[in-house]
Amino acid sequence: MSESTGFTTMARARAEGEAPVIGVGMLGYDFMGKAHTNAYKKIPYMMYPPPAVPKLVGICGRTEEAVAEAKRRYGYDDYYTDWRKMLENDDIQLFDNGGPNNVHAEPCIAAAEAGKHVFCEKPLARTAEEAKLMLDAVEKAGVKHMVAHNYRFVPAIRLAKELIDSGKLGQIYHFRAQYLQEWIMPHYNEKLIWRLRKDIAGSGAIGDLGSHIVDLGHYLVGDYKSISAMTRTFIEERPLPDGSGTGKVDVDDAFVASIEFDNGAIGTLECTRFGAGRKNYQVLEINAEKGRAASTSSWKN
Amino acid sequence: MSESTGFTTMARARAEGEAPVIGVGMLGYDFMGKAHTNAYKKIPYMMYPPPAVPKLVGICGRTEEAVAEAKRRYGYDDYYTDWRKMLENDDIQLFDNGGPNNVHAEPCIAAAEAGKHVFCEKPLARTAEEAKLMLDAVEKAGVKHMVAHNYRFVPAIRLAKELIDSGKLGQIYHFRAQYLQEWIMPHYNEKLIWRLRKDIAGSGAIGDLGSHIVDLGHYLVGDYKSISAMTRTFIEERPLPDGSGTGKVDVDDAFVASIEFDNGAIGTLECTRFGAGRKNYQVLEINAEKGRAASTSSWKN
Amino acid sequence: MSESTGFTTMARARAEGEAPVIGVGMLGYDFMGKAHTNAYKKIPYMMYPPPAVPKLVGICGRTEEAVAEAKRRYGYDDYYTDWRKMLENDDIQLFDNGGPNNVHAEPCIAAAEAGKHVFCEKPLARTAEEAKLMLDAVEKAGVKHMVAHNYRFVPAIRLAKELIDSGKLGQIYHFRAQYLQEWIMPHYNEKLIWRLRKDIAGSGAIGDLGSHIVDLGHYLVGDYKSISAMTRTFIEERPLPDGSGTGKVDVDDAFVASIEFDNGAIGTLECTRFGAGRKNYQVLEINAEKGRAASTSSWKN
Amino acid sequence: MSESTGFTTMARARAEGEAPVIGVGMLGYDFMGKAHTNAYKKIPYMMYPPPAVPKLVGICGRTEEAVAEAKRRYGYDDYYTDWRKMLENDDIQLFDNGGPNNVHAEPCIAAAEAGKHVFCEKPLARTAEEAKLMLDAVEKAGVKHMVAHNYRFVPAIRLAKELIDSGKLGQIYHFRAQYLQEWIMPHYNEKLIWRLRKDIAGSGAIGDLGSHIVDLGHYLVGDYKSISAMTRTFIEERPLPDGSGTGKVDVDDAFVASIEFDNGAIGTLECTRFGAGRKNYQVLEINAEKGRAASTSSWKN
Repeated sequence: MSESTGFTTMARARAEGEAPVIGVGMLGYDFMGKAHTNAYKKIPYMMYPPPAVPKLVGICGRTEEAVAEAKRRYGYDDYYTDWRKMLENDDIQLFDNGGPNNVHAEPCIAAAEAGKHVFCEKPLARTAEEAKLMLDAVEKAGVKHMVAHNYRFVPAIRLAKELIDSGKLGQIYHFRAQYLQEWIMPHYNEKLIWRLRKDIAGSGAIGDLGSHIVDLGHYLVGDYKSISAMTRTFIEERPLPDGSGTGKVDVDDAFVASIEFDNGAIGTLECTRFGAGRKNYQVLEINAEKGRAASTSSWKN
Repeated sequence: MSESTGFTTMARARAEGEAPVIGVGMLGYDFMGKAHTNAYKKIPYMMYPPPAVPKLVGICGRTEEAVAEAKRRYGYDDYYTDWRKMLENDDIQLFDNGGPNNVHAEPCIAAAEAGKHVFCEKPLARTAEEAKLMLDAVEKAGVKHMVAHNYRFVPAIRLAKELIDSGKLGQIYHFRAQYLQEWIMPHYNEKLIWRLRKDIAGSGAIGDLGSHIVDLGHYLVGDYKSISAMTRTFIEERPLPDGSGTGKVDVDDAFVASIEFDNGAIGTLECTRFGAGRKNYQVLEINAEKGRAASTSSWKN
Repeated sequence: MSESTGFTTMARARAEGEAPVIGVGMLGYDFMGKAHTNAYKKIPYMMYPPPAVPKLVGICGRTEEAVAEAKRRYGYDDYYTDWRKMLENDDIQLFDNGGPNNVHAEPCIAAAEAGKHVFCEKPLARTAEEAKLMLDAVEKAGVKHMVAHNYRFVPAIRLAKELIDSGKLGQIYHFRAQYLQEWIMPHYNEKLIWRLRKDIAGSGAIGDLGSHIVDLGHYLVGDYKSISAMTRTFIEERPLPDGSGTGKVDVDDAFVASIEFDNGAIGTLECTRFGAGRKNYQVLEINAEKGRAASTSSWKN
Repeated sequence: MSESTGFTTMARARAEGEAPVIGVGMLGYDFMGKAHTNAYKKIPYMMYPPPAVPKLVGICGRTEEAVAEAKRRYGYDDYYTDWRKMLENDDIQLFDNGGPNNVHAEPCIAAAEAGKHVFCEKPLARTAEEAKLMLDAVEKAGVKHMVAHNYRFVPAIRLAKELIDSGKLGQIYHFRAQYLQEWIMPHYNEKLIWRLRKDIAGSGAIGDLGSHIVDLGHYLVGDYKSISAMTRTFIEERPLPDGSGTGKVDVDDAFVASIEFDNGAIGTLECTRFGAGRKNYQVLEINAEKGRAASTSSWKN
């Protein structure tokens, strides 16, 4: 270990030549549009030397005033209110879909058909059918594609993966994971926002939180063989955002599942938006032949 | 709070008159025979004034030398190698069944028919059918009866129960419980003991560990509406205790379950004897409308 | 591992011959009188075969009605209201001092001089001077002697001790321990009981809680080289138990300390009776050359 | 709570007019030069609308090749190998000192004298004397000044601060904090880098780790009244980085401290670079009249 390792890893890296530039077209400017844009802006100096330098070519949203502000805020070259228009821009090689779930499939498929690489926020789609169409499209187009399962890149998860792949843990017996939030509990008085509508979100806690831990189980342990789950919607009627009355919540507030993997391991998965006392609590544990690997929640609670 | 409260609660209690004596007949002298006998011996001075004073009348086991030693060790009046004989003793008002699961039903039913109160170690029976016969018998006989679900009496569980019953937690959304041990993992080289044989134990982790957390869910949250579970036997062949070869493990080493309660709560249950790193780890958590209640493992780990 | 190991260890032990009987004379019948008596009653069957069988010869206290009840409750042969009288009983070979701290030194010294083995509740004495006199007395008398530092016998502490003694942890760098309670915080409205009076208790949290963790540091890491501490009394005036007014609290409610050991390790000790949220919370951690050993709180919190 | 709150807070903020630009001159390009530059680059879009937009005017370091690379990597307008030269640049309004501790005082004082605002990495100085000179200089110059005590801005710390300031916790009794790392333990084979040299770093764990938790105690609880500490250097001789032999470690590897505050609270502080099993573990706890506030480690461990 020298002065440039540990905390200061990569601080003294040197770049040879110029990294290729890749033009980014972003769909969405809210929560995930902000998060992904932040990532693109940091790549050139945090991952040094960068494998590529993202160029913020275009950002797209339905509300012109808002997307224009996003363009200015993040420094995109242009803004669009129609993603089809944005996909016509030849300077865009990578299409990033950070929009709501109901606009994942069609734009991603169109982007692939336009020859653009595709990066899509999770959950990939509202249904397995949609997801399959998306996969077929990117494979047919031969473009690079990826879902934003960001927790795979948490150091603790990477370490667990290395321990498993190296054989140091031996046979895996158990995988259990929980992802608990509480933001739609009664005292939050949350309205019927898009995340609570099946036509837009596809599902509730399953897609929003479950996609992360389902992916981590797959990433760490392997293919699922079977799953048995129960869902629950604790508050079935909520006020409409526009104040015009109430509407039915037709997605799950929570789910629990028993799982088995092809390699024989069994486990439990659990996600909820009614996890009192848990703002954003994600934990997982593996019990294996030669030891235990666990990842605690990564946020100061 | 005065000097006699808190840690010293009950240290200065006074008894009026004499507590009634209750004669105990114990089946089994091993792990649970020892634990239950210890409890009977402590009642007269730890629960003061005692509701009754247990008298250790008889203890029963198959191996004469061992049960004779148990009689001497614990101070029973007599020992028996035939539980039917012991049940003929009129000084016994309470029959305690601390034997293996395959000798739970018949002796308990006979004891009830002989008019004796019945206290039985968990799991109550090897099958639901056996359990129903036992329940019918004690109810018909009109005797007092109880299963040894000891964790109900842990202070943290009692506090959770009080919080729930008082309404302070409001509606319950989630119940999750894990009970993890590791004592039959490969490196323990455990043989095919009775706890791993279906004819004697009825089940593996389900009855041994699961009975506790299934009971706690019932105790704290209420009646179960449905359950979906998976079991696994990780080591399917083990050496016979007598060295004569190997035999098949026909009980579960572990199970995972998704549950729902009549009151709408959902949850997960998980038990294993392959929980690497967990000697005797029992945790549970409730997420409710107005808060969270959790019980951590009660052993220094 | 066989059926008689693990959880059932010692369940099938066999005794050869008869264990010697040792007569016990107990001073005190409250919190510690109860705890120690319970231990004596369990030795004959829990530690099997027992190294000796305690005989409950006499119990002593100032209030005749209360000590008579204690005699009846625990099954002592006789009761005394004067410990000097009790020490004259030749059937007593072991004197157990479970009384308040101000009656530790004189009775223990007298017991030693009467040739009785001495077991004394912690803290051993109110001052180092008292403690030295006690040690001199038992050594001069040649009797066996022990202070009730019970946490040394917790399995996790024993394991830590084994790890250290075996050299598996290598050089020890750090020892930190906390013992936190909250029972005299404002909302408990505690009166000026004897534990808060210097003439009786000698000290507050230092002797009551600190004696445990100071002992564990000594037991696990070794001799102390130096210590620097601060104490605090958060509530300086409390109501007298007899309702006759208020009195001054002249012991510490809490202390913090920096310590160093002869072997070079450094650490912190902290005890309080104002540890909001901590009913009885004792944790310790060791950081060493080859690893970390920690003991979490042993009570379900 | 509406769609734009919670996780998506600030995602939809709108900016009115243009934020003022502030020119930054950075000293240092390693660990902290990287961290601070990252912060400046994120301010314009993460803190929206930004109070000011940092302009990366100049970066300074001793090694020309390295600082030239840093200029290119982070996008500074110019690089310098002499901080005095950099301070002559009138486009710089804010001087950020992310260099080693021995170049904190002189450049910061010179920057203040040149009328520039001063932001300095912790520990502020190698000695109290140096720190006082720096404070005097910025106060005399009337410039804004700040030390990089970043943990003050962690949400859990902010929440604790709010709870305290609101009076919800009542009187504070205890503050305890630990900051444990392990990166110079024997198996890391760390050389005698500048962080282990008193002439450059001033101190070891005290300044590097201790400055954070000393600051948090001050921030949360108030002014310190007294402190008593012990330090230890576990490895006293290390190889020189240039391979020319070994040199003496003249800073502390660890310290423990007992503290008291003006408001009567007492506590412990502990920092080490020999905390086996703790990569970067920072915890703190407050026990107060009406409750407990604690911050767990913020990194997945």
